Amino acid sequence: MNALNVAEYMQTLGLQARQASAAMARADAATRNKALRTLAALLRANAASLQTDNEKDLARAATSSLSAPMVDRLKLTPKIIETVAQGCEQLAAMPDIIGEISGLQQQPSGIRVGRMRVPLGVFGMIYESRPNVTIEAASLSIKSGNACILRGGSEAIDSNKALGRLVQQALAESGLPAEAVQLVQTTDREAVGQLIAMPQHVDVIIPRGGKGLIERISRDAKVPVIKHLDGNCHVYVDDPCDIDMAVRVADNAKTQKYSPCNAIEGLLVARASAQAFLPKIAAVFAAKGVEMRCDAEAKALISPIAPALVKDATEQDWFEEYLAPVISIKLVAGLDEAIAHINHYSSHHTDAIITRDHMHAQRFLREVDSASVMVNASPRFADGFEFGLGAEIGISTDKFHARGPVGLEGLTSLKWVVLGNGELRS
Amino acid sequence: MNALNVAEYMQTLGLQARQASAAMARADAATRNKALRTLAALLRANAASLQTDNEKDLARAATSSLSAPMVDRLKLTPKIIETVAQGCEQLAAMPDIIGEISGLQQQPSGIRVGRMRVPLGVFGMIYESRPNVTIEAASLSIKSGNACILRGGSEAIDSNKALGRLVQQALAESGLPAEAVQLVQTTDREAVGQLIAMPQHVDVIIPRGGKGLIERISRDAKVPVIKHLDGNCHVYVDDPCDIDMAVRVADNAKTQKYSPCNAIEGLLVARASAQAFLPKIAAVFAAKGVEMRCDAEAKALISPIAPALVKDATEQDWFEEYLAPVISIKLVAGLDEAIAHINHYSSHHTDAIITRDHMHAQRFLREVDSASVMVNASPRFADGFEFGLGAEIGISTDKFHARGPVGLEGLTSLKWVVLGNGELRS
Repeated sequence: MNALNVAEYMQTLGLQARQASAAMARADAATRNKALRTLAALLRANAASLQTDNEKDLARAATSSLSAPMVDRLKLTPKIIETVAQGCEQLAAMPDIIGEISGLQQQPSGIRVGRMRVPLGVFGMIYESRPNVTIEAASLSIKSGNACILRGGSEAIDSNKALGRLVQQALAESGLPAEAVQLVQTTDREAVGQLIAMPQHVDVIIPRGGKGLIERISRDAKVPVIKHLDGNCHVYVDDPCDIDMAVRVADNAKTQKYSPCNAIEGLLVARASAQAFLPKIAAVFAAKGVEMRCDAEAKALISPIAPALVKDATEQDWFEEYLAPVISIKLVAGLDEAIAHINHYSSHHTDAIITRDHMHAQRFLREVDSASVMVNASPRFADGFEFGLGAEIGISTDKFHARGPVGLEGLTSLKWVVLGNGELRS
Repeated sequence: MNALNVAEYMQTLGLQARQASAAMARADAATRNKALRTLAALLRANAASLQTDNEKDLARAATSSLSAPMVDRLKLTPKIIETVAQGCEQLAAMPDIIGEISGLQQQPSGIRVGRMRVPLGVFGMIYESRPNVTIEAASLSIKSGNACILRGGSEAIDSNKALGRLVQQALAESGLPAEAVQLVQTTDREAVGQLIAMPQHVDVIIPRGGKGLIERISRDAKVPVIKHLDGNCHVYVDDPCDIDMAVRVADNAKTQKYSPCNAIEGLLVARASAQAFLPKIAAVFAAKGVEMRCDAEAKALISPIAPALVKDATEQDWFEEYLAPVISIKLVAGLDEAIAHINHYSSHHTDAIITRDHMHAQRFLREVDSASVMVNASPRFADGFEFGLGAEIGISTDKFHARGPVGLEGLTSLKWVVLGNGELRS
């Protein structure tokens, strides 16, 4: 396709999505759930042929410059296929939130006013690598009564096309328009530029990928973007606190996995807890090879334990999202300094306090301006499944509309409904 | 000020607002309510001097090209001052929503997860003419725990400065930072360009004004915009319906006032109700001098009643927001055609059905994709006060974040709170 053809093609997808979205918004819960269960069955029945298509992507990847972890994420193993099939069934079993009317109250004029939860309409999703995201996005779209246009990475195009065909088959077999979930069939980059700039057809864009991609999309999009920038998360070890709990949580938050956005990058320690806490956590980190970038006071306490892994932190370290076995460590006077540091340096993703002080816990929850704030729990819990949303389309670092893990609710809007008996405005 | 100075000045306002917003988010409800009551008292105590400052704006307006209705909107009469003072007191008496935690539920991991309502942070508001909007915006900002930067029109600059001083006095006397509400002191247009492009200091922009202004701001803003574009609202007269109710509601919706965004611009009539309804409403409209732009069928029924006021509608008429004694009228086969017409031509603001059919009412509520959908009530009710919000900062025609009348809730965000006992992610 040339650029002109891509533009025309994307306009066609957009128009079809807009038309399909009306049918999806109208469809009852039973029909949408049937499509999800049909999709699960189709995924299982076609597991072998999905793997054949996935082989094409893997073969291309083998001769490309793709890193080993990226190639790994490309794989559609039988286990992954079973997991996404189960995910569809779990979504089908969840309560339906579309059409629900809340807060219906009579007003002095006599009218009754409430709010109805409705789909957003059409969302466009831009993502990379893992083909199972195609099914996660498609199934959330079906459950939430939206239509969507999915643009996966070129490295997964054959797997995604195969998955997209099964989704459309499931929709059609359930009496829903196949165009309710459309996979962009071209890997031309121009398609992304078109997708994010057609407000008449697409209501919101959800990008998943590196910070550069998301910043570029946010800058150029002509519609709202549910965006997830970086995850510079913190644990603050307060005074007083259960020191052993602090060690366990800080360890889990940093080392259980290094790559997730909700792993911590910074550790703040109340000066009065430092002597008891730092040598213990330093021993844990040292055993796992975690580099510690410290301010002078923390360095003095940690150096005797792990001299080889201690470095001086620079100002830039407080901002950094390492996603690696590296952590910044700083001593603070107490709660006020911890909150000020987090609100200044963190990416407003997820931050936790370890404390025994009730007032400190309350203030931390109220005053830390992050999407998820935690008391005595590991920031690694910031996740749609762990929060009980059933599924997530992403994690938002915005304050607007959806914040933190985004599930079905984030893909909906509330419209006002007014029930009257001929009342007039005076 | 030159452009460079304006940029520096706005950066200073932004930084001060950001700092003040932390104190406002921390402030308890009693303190914020005290500021609102103090402001009400100050407004009353300074009614005379406010009018003196208002005279300066009115004197300038008298020698300018401002239209008579615009000049009228500029006036700060004793009655208007009393009304805004009462508005502050009413807000102070309303329940506080900041800090409220909802849906706290234990998850399988043991953590308890809920959502806390928190201020958005800093909003920037851009508006014209009516100086009482300064107090409405300031008081909503105080109640919702935000900080704000207000940019009124140059025609009201003296009145706005005087009101801004009273707001800052009320804040300071209540122990809150005066910078929580800042009025832009320069009328330089560059200030708007700066205000909408400092995401580090301003979280959201709320423009109030003409469609051109709002489109320009939405296009150039680097932060989200709560926007209100046009109000092309409809009444659909169904079959079966109470014809007399339909006449009363259509009359109220069109003629009670012509200028509000929630006045209707289009009337759709089910063919089976047309013979009974159209002559009656045509007589009402004719008596009030309302021009009727009709399709051929409607024209045939109305011409005998009001020959002088009937015109042929063009395709453009179905899109038009007249804000004047003009209405478009079209016959439709029934509910399906009415919904399709509204979803295609309306501005997704407010649309109503007049019906006796329960299934039709349900389908209209569900399928019409507008911010407010009504059954047997006048679209003129689409208003924060009539909906029970206590106050409104505007009406949003967006689907994202806030939709329809925007009150305190639209100025807040929900963050996730997690309460644990040392739980780890496995």
